[in-house]
This record gives sequence, structure tokens and C-alpha cells, in this order.
Amino acid sequence: MQTISSWAAHGGTLSVHDHASSTTNCTMRFAVYTPPQAKDGPVPVLWFLSGLTCTWANVMEKSGIMAHAAQHGLMVIAPDTSPRGDDVANDDAYDIGQGAGFYLTATQAPWAEHFKMDQYLTNELPVIIAGNFPADMARQGITGHSMGGHGALTLHLKYPETYRTCSAFAPIVSPIRVPWGQKAFETYLGPLNIDWEQYDTTELVKERPSDAHILIDQGGADQFLTEQLDPETFLTACKNHGQHVTHRMQPGYDHSYYFIASFMADHVAHHASVLPG
Amino acid sequence: MQTISSWAAHGGTLSVHDHASSTTNCTMRFAVYTPPQAKDGPVPVLWFLSGLTCTWANVMEKSGIMAHAAQHGLMVIAPDTSPRGDDVANDDAYDIGQGAGFYLTATQAPWAEHFKMDQYLTNELPVIIAGNFPADMARQGITGHSMGGHGALTLHLKYPETYRTCSAFAPIVSPIRVPWGQKAFETYLGPLNIDWEQYDTTELVKERPSDAHILIDQGGADQFLTEQLDPETFLTACKNHGQHVTHRMQPGYDHSYYFIASFMADHVAHHASVLPG
Repeated sequence: MQTISSWAAHGGTLSVHDHASSTTNCTMRFAVYTPPQAKDGPVPVLWFLSGLTCTWANVMEKSGIMAHAAQHGLMVIAPDTSPRGDDVANDDAYDIGQGAGFYLTATQAPWAEHFKMDQYLTNELPVIIAGNFPADMARQGITGHSMGGHGALTLHLKYPETYRTCSAFAPIVSPIRVPWGQKAFETYLGPLNIDWEQYDTTELVKERPSDAHILIDQGGADQFLTEQLDPETFLTACKNHGQHVTHRMQPGYDHSYYFIASFMADHVAHHASVLPG
Repeated sequence: MQTISSWAAHGGTLSVHDHASSTTNCTMRFAVYTPPQAKDGPVPVLWFLSGLTCTWANVMEKSGIMAHAAQHGLMVIAPDTSPRGDDVANDDAYDIGQGAGFYLTATQAPWAEHFKMDQYLTNELPVIIAGNFPADMARQGITGHSMGGHGALTLHLKYPETYRTCSAFAPIVSPIRVPWGQKAFETYLGPLNIDWEQYDTTELVKERPSDAHILIDQGGADQFLTEQLDPETFLTACKNHGQHVTHRMQPGYDHSYYFIASFMADHVAHHASVLPG
């Protein structure tokens, strides 16, 4: 692991790191916010999975997450949204290829060689975190935005004992039913097949609701609300299958980081209440 | 005035506007954060003047200022750092020309035609704000970063009854004594002459200290600390001439927006304590 940059921030440290990933077969970059409380021993970990086109930087620069994490004593991990590099397959579209990993394991050429973000996040990066940072890996939560909300929800539902708390900002809750998800899954997983459902939050919640209480904030003026996010099918599935969820429709808010920053305090507090620092 | 964009943020509204300026002879862009308290009547105004290369966006996206302004009921105005446009003089250097207005009135060609940021900020933009937003112009404070800290300090000392409160992040406190200021002043004002001192905070504070208590935060690991910022001469002048100032050296912090965001809560509270919402 190589440290690229480091900044003092909110009494703690923001640092950015590269490492050679054996899962994605390329160099992966991630950021870690270590709160001041880590001086006294391992702290709980909050993963933030970002949306289409983003890197570690968006959430650390624009969301205010570090100020709230410093208050509650949480470490924040911001991974990249896909493998990257000249040798990694890409596409001119913003919603396919680099910056658009969709937190799944691709089965189709040319994507299958590098695009394994779910395996990278659950198997490889946690070992790096545990080995290099004062992180208490028995206390992990996960959140994210848009495509990253999809990532957070699916990983929480699949691994509820690892990611004990979950929240999301404007998540894609049923990729198999919306254009972003259908395009990505067809590209990475091939035409509709049994693999698709394992990456669909709405289908997962029908099979295995978690014991956690999920917090979701949704912008009422989000330009993607109707076509791409469509929370109703998911909320119906939660109701029918006993998944506890608080879904807050926030009038006037769009899909931007101004929306995320406006409600980040509540999300960090939501995780901290179950994963005390 | 034309509204370019608008977002819900922290219970209020962030909006971005263009207008044709008769002072700078070009289209000027600025951003306004209107806090939720403005629904109940005019609110105090906090000006944030940005540093080299910045626009309205840096402070609104990265500093967390809106969250704190919403808490205290302050409006935030983020002007641009210079006139801009194809017809406006420019330079390849990041510290001269567009993005580097230095909050002064240029006397030298080709700059004198457009570069009048101090006049624009004190005479023209306030009329636009007062006419279009729920701002109480009897309660204004001013802050800024680096070059914008220089702008905030000089405008406060010249117009203490307009900008009743003042703070700064890593300000240029004596441009006539440091390379950034010497280069800019020589370019915009010509070789050392009587005009230079009127734009130098340290010289101004010797002549006319204000009754306000100025708050300054300084990064102890700021890469520009010794060569460009050099607070000691200014602090000595404050001491000798009765200017109240709290200068906080923050160990480990650099010149970035991570530094600004880490201490923004204290700055907004500093202004709000004198300009209650």
C-alpha cells in the first residue's frame, strides 16, 4: 500500500492510498478518514460507496462526512467506483466502464478481467484496512449514493453480520427494473439471467431481509426519481417481507452532493447509534 | 440579474446568478446561500471572498459553510475572484489575471478596464443583493481565504461600519511584503507607489484599527506560511495599534479546503455572535 496524499481534517487525518489489487488486476485507489478518537484505540468503520463517475474525492470534499465522523468517532472508507487504468476496459458512456462498476462481478468480456467490485470490497480491501488502520472490523456500517446506494444495500443484505448498519442517499433500489441497471447488467452480466437478481436490492430483501433498520433519504426534486430510482417497488417489498426501513422524501432536493451534505449528519448518527465510537 | 442554477441545501437555497456589471464592464457571476430563517424576514449577511483560481463554487461545495449558516441564520454571498470572459485581460500564470483579482482597482493597462473588484464588491454587488434577496444590509460580516482573506481584512478595515465583523483563513496579511502581493500589485498598480499601502492589511491596521475582534485561523503545515502569509508582522502591528485579533495556529493543517472546513463552524459562529440571525 502506497500513501499518495494526507491532510489534517476535523482533528483527524484524511489519507489517500494506492495498492495493487489481485481481485481487480489493477491499481486501486481509496481514501480513509481516521477520526481523532482513533488515537485511543480502534474505531468503528463506515463505508461510503459513491455513485456513477465518482472517485473517493467527491464524498470527502463535498459531503461533510468527515465533520460528522469526527464528532461520532467513526472511520470513513471511500473506495473508488470501479477498476481504472489504461489497461482496463472502458466505454464512452458515463454509466458503463470506468467510474461505473455497479458493485458486482462481471461475467462478460471484456469486463470480467477487472470488474469485480463486490469481491474487491468484501474480501480484499477490508484486509488492507484492518492491517493498516486503527479500525474495529467487528463494527462496520455501509452507506452510499445512487449507484453506491445500490452497492451499500446489496452488500448489507448479503453480509448483514459484516455491514451491521446500512443507509443510502437516493439509491438505485431495483436495477433490474430501471434503465441504468438494465444497461449495466446486460453489459456486465449478459442478457437477463439468474445472476441479475443477486445484485438487486428489491429481490434480495424478499429473500433475506436484515435485522437492521435501514435509513434512506430521497430528494423530492431528484431528476432521476421516477425513471431510475423508483423507490415504491422496494418499499412495498420491505413492507411485505418485514424489512425495517425509514424512507424520507425530502421536498425540493435533487440528486446532487448538496442533497447528500444536507442530510449526512443524520446518516452518520444513524450508524453511530448502533456502532458507538 | 439572471438565475443560472438553484439547489435546495440545508433547509435553505443555494442559487447562482449572472449580471452585467457596470463596474467591471463584464458579466459577473456570484452565489447566494439563503438560509431557512429568511422565510421569516431579512437575515444578516456573511461575505466569503475566495482565494486564487477560485469561483463561487469552491466555498459552497467544499467548506461546509452552508450547514453552519443554516444553523445560525446567516445569508452567505460568494462572489467571483475577478472579472472573467474572452474580452477580459488574462495571463497564463495562476496568480495574475482571471481568478486573481486581488480585491483592488487596477490602474495599469490592460487591467484597468475590468479589474475593479473592491469597487464592485462595495458599491455594485450590495445593491443587487439588497434588491433581490431577504438580506439585512445593516448586519454584514466578511471573511475569506488566502487572497480572499486579504480582501476580507482590507475591506473590513476600510469600511468597518459596513462589514461589522471580520475573520480570515490563512490570509495574505501584507501583500506589499510577499511575492504573491508584490507581483500582483506591480502588475495591477505599477511599480511601488502610494496606491500599494491602501491594499495592505498591515499598513491599514496601523492607520485605522477597527473596533471589531478579528478571528484568524492559520495552518501550521501551510506550504505558503513562511513565504507568502507570514503573519508575524501583521500581529505585531495589531498589538502595537490596538487591533483585537485572535490568531490560532492549527498544527498539521495545510492551505486546502480541508483546513477551511475544519474550522468553518467557529468562523460562522464568530460572525453570528455579533450579527445574530
